[in-house]
Amino acid sequence: MLPLPTLAQNLGIAPEHLIQYGRDKAKVALEALEAARARRPRPGKLILVSAITPTPAGEGKTVTSIGLAQGLRKLDRSVALALRQPSMGPVFGRKGGATGGGLSTVQPATDINLHFTGDFHAVTAAHNLLASVIDNALHRGQTRLAPGGVLWKRVLDANDRALRSVRVAVGDPGERLSGFDITAASEIMAILCLAASRDDLRARLDRLVVGFTADGEPVPACEFRVTGALMALLRDALLPNLVQSAEGVPAFVHGGPFANIAHGCNSILATRMALAHADYVVTEAGFAFDLGGEKFIDIKCRQSGLAPDAIVIVATIRALKMHGGMPRDALAAPDLPAIRCGLENLRAHVGAAASFNRPVVVAINHFPTDTDAELALVRDFCAAELRVPCALSQVFARGGEGGTELAGAVLSLFDGADAAAAISYPKLEYVYPDDIPVTEKINTIARRIYGASGVDILPGAAARLVLFERAGFGRLPICMAKTQDSLTDDPKKPGRPQGFRITVRDFELAAGAGFIVALTGKMLRMPALPKVPAAEKIDLAPDGAITGIMGT
Amino acid sequence: MLPLPTLAQNLGIAPEHLIQYGRDKAKVALEALEAARARRPRPGKLILVSAITPTPAGEGKTVTSIGLAQGLRKLDRSVALALRQPSMGPVFGRKGGATGGGLSTVQPATDINLHFTGDFHAVTAAHNLLASVIDNALHRGQTRLAPGGVLWKRVLDANDRALRSVRVAVGDPGERLSGFDITAASEIMAILCLAASRDDLRARLDRLVVGFTADGEPVPACEFRVTGALMALLRDALLPNLVQSAEGVPAFVHGGPFANIAHGCNSILATRMALAHADYVVTEAGFAFDLGGEKFIDIKCRQSGLAPDAIVIVATIRALKMHGGMPRDALAAPDLPAIRCGLENLRAHVGAAASFNRPVVVAINHFPTDTDAELALVRDFCAAELRVPCALSQVFARGGEGGTELAGAVLSLFDGADAAAAISYPKLEYVYPDDIPVTEKINTIARRIYGASGVDILPGAAARLVLFERAGFGRLPICMAKTQDSLTDDPKKPGRPQGFRITVRDFELAAGAGFIVALTGKMLRMPALPKVPAAEKIDLAPDGAITGIMGT
Repeated sequence: MLPLPTLAQNLGIAPEHLIQYGRDKAKVALEALEAARARRPRPGKLILVSAITPTPAGEGKTVTSIGLAQGLRKLDRSVALALRQPSMGPVFGRKGGATGGGLSTVQPATDINLHFTGDFHAVTAAHNLLASVIDNALHRGQTRLAPGGVLWKRVLDANDRALRSVRVAVGDPGERLSGFDITAASEIMAILCLAASRDDLRARLDRLVVGFTADGEPVPACEFRVTGALMALLRDALLPNLVQSAEGVPAFVHGGPFANIAHGCNSILATRMALAHADYVVTEAGFAFDLGGEKFIDIKCRQSGLAPDAIVIVATIRALKMHGGMPRDALAAPDLPAIRCGLENLRAHVGAAASFNRPVVVAINHFPTDTDAELALVRDFCAAELRVPCALSQVFARGGEGGTELAGAVLSLFDGADAAAAISYPKLEYVYPDDIPVTEKINTIARRIYGASGVDILPGAAARLVLFERAGFGRLPICMAKTQDSLTDDPKKPGRPQGFRITVRDFELAAGAGFIVALTGKMLRMPALPKVPAAEKIDLAPDGAITGIMGT
Repeated sequence: MLPLPTLAQNLGIAPEHLIQYGRDKAKVALEALEAARARRPRPGKLILVSAITPTPAGEGKTVTSIGLAQGLRKLDRSVALALRQPSMGPVFGRKGGATGGGLSTVQPATDINLHFTGDFHAVTAAHNLLASVIDNALHRGQTRLAPGGVLWKRVLDANDRALRSVRVAVGDPGERLSGFDITAASEIMAILCLAASRDDLRARLDRLVVGFTADGEPVPACEFRVTGALMALLRDALLPNLVQSAEGVPAFVHGGPFANIAHGCNSILATRMALAHADYVVTEAGFAFDLGGEKFIDIKCRQSGLAPDAIVIVATIRALKMHGGMPRDALAAPDLPAIRCGLENLRAHVGAAASFNRPVVVAINHFPTDTDAELALVRDFCAAELRVPCALSQVFARGGEGGTELAGAVLSLFDGADAAAAISYPKLEYVYPDDIPVTEKINTIARRIYGASGVDILPGAAARLVLFERAGFGRLPICMAKTQDSLTDDPKKPGRPQGFRITVRDFELAAGAGFIVALTGKMLRMPALPKVPAAEKIDLAPDGAITGIMGT
């Protein structure tokens, strides 16, 4: 790893644009983006890492992304990462860190998993300032919102079951049932990640809808006159963070919106900053391709004009067995027929990814229990049936060395074109156009991406949709909130189900982020602590090192 | 102002002990303390700035502290500041910033008033992690605490009326009425400020009492097994922050506990860090001397072994008129008789301060409306009646130049002794010894410091005190929570009341901070927003500057 000023210098970031937070973390001034674009007008190539429907442990998108970037570096390519910052709450709950693993991590992993540079805290503060101002207006009768019409809750970056359902303002005119979401679920987090600039951030904060009047009129946040204060609170949080992988690959780790009720990608500014400074940029989208990949394209790319130049679909032998019907506690045992059957899940995701006219490569995230016969089966399937390259990724155990096969496969997608050359892809086609009805948008996603036969919208949801469309929000893209455990909306259905229908139970409006959330099930916005919270293992050693965060 | 690395270098702080947060803020590693002590074994002289009973606008302790330090610098003395960090919540409410004013400020004032280096956020996160773990244990029936016995609430650094009284865990076994305090009121904030070291921080977190069992047994936080996780969250927050005044005086701005239910002083580590690196250290204590000064000595000094070498009592002509009976909206008009009468309030505070066998100087914080005759009256009173030096402080308008008279007066207290020489003061005598009953301690404070004739303890309070004393906490010092607007416990009684009694309405235990809080009235732990919150004036300019924070 390099001293951070050297890392930045190697990227071409001027010292005056590097704002250090301690020795190993920094923010990069937005001015660096313009400076880099003036220097190298053609941005780098964007490689999107997504996955098949995962096991509960995940397919390893983050570790694969980091390892792929390290592999590209081993092949002497100029490369950077653009990744989400993990949420702190789950670190104390069940999940452990989310900064890769083994020899493919971003560092300082403990800091990134905790306060990092304070961005989540800034989002928490901004979200709750708006909440306090709304409640102050309710208390004083200064708003056309009625207590029952307030949709804006509060947030904390914590796993706290007792805050899910909370009666606030007890004894006050504003008393009502409300609650706290985890900060990653704040619309302000999604807004921060989708903002293209300071001005765009301000415009989005102004127009975010905090509730509806009794007549069904949307009430935008700007009515509460604190957008300037929110901007002040978010001043530094808007700047992308710069750290590095364990092998010294620059990593812009910035923003962490939920992947269900939000779009689940790092910030647009971090992606742009990476693309402006490196020839190849590896990024990821939350959950499997049906959820995260689709939202990456239909929300992040649609709003920003970005487009992936290649798509990596990560799969594990374990997940393929699960999709082939093996019980989750037996996935270490060899079973070729189960894999053969489970490969239909891979086919679905690769098919969806390839439909965007971008080259796709499959990465097998290697586990020690994988057999040669199992790996060969997957490789043969990719070649013969899917007609996409397939590479073994051993980045957890071997770091960048274990990522060169995948890196080579990715580079081969570009046909040996010079890194600086444009690739003449057709313009990225989104799944649906802006100007069709919301129900039609959802139908298109469900049929084309999930393989569903149709969509049912429950009456309550339909009524809310009427409210949103009447208020003029019908042109927004859709943010599907669906289980990550199945192509269907039923987490108990692995593999490649056929003839199923998707049920939309509710809609939510994220007018500042710029999407309508379609909820296909109960989405938990505030996680809880398990019987033995992970916090019990975490400690501060006498030398000041933080120990016990899983995966660090 | 100097580049921060130069500022640190001038203090003798090694580069490896300076951890920068952006260009103009830093933290200092605790190792710098040992290094400095090895280099210059005799610490600097500690100058405590306190005040008379203030007007609602405050007497200007912070601006006087900063200006005095700048004045000492003008007189070529080696000097540093040790100050509290202001709370962010009130910045959006009514109060504006608390980083001095005019030409005597600490910088970057906007950052210090907002996120600064994230210390308040870390305290918030640690406090709420403990709360979430307690509620998780209640939910699962894993604790001997009953929901009704939980005293640990949650905190946010916000002014949020709707969170004062909140029903948490609605529908869960742990459902109960609880609430949020502002972060400055968190016991963890007081603990952070009183911790002498990492080990001491851990021991205090372990022993803080989160509630009582049905049998009246105290339940310490260590039963919830997350002290290590709290330590991880507080790792960086424990390190003193280093910034500078507008004239380049180093300022350790660290910690911000409430001055009513807590002791209201910056951290012990910041004070020690300043004393280890400069010949003269200017610090302040919250509220007037009867509250802040007494707690500085009886809590901060008692727990740390620190002692002031001199005490400055700040007074304004405006406040003296108020104490002499003038209405608050007429304080700009000249009125010698009112001042003559109001000087009795100054006599009370100077008398209390002088009783600790440390030299006292009165600083008149100058306002443009002050007349020469008014100033002469105060000067004469100090010389003839109080027999202490009195100096005019014009630091708001003139910076360090306006502080040289006060700086000279302070230096004269040390009898021309060389800065590095020991002054042979008698050992600091606290107001009361550890081993007398709590009620006797309060009686002693009330009679000796407030001038009361006695103390009444309401029956409910007495019952709680029995609980605390039975549990073995009777030896702790007392943290008086009393109005700052009067020497009595009635904010409507300015001047120098006689023959009054103090009523203790309740007691609270802060076993980790190491004191028992005696509440003499209703103390608001969560401020509210006014009709027009200050947030409405705050904005982010296109150049990235934050505007509209009052006093910055």
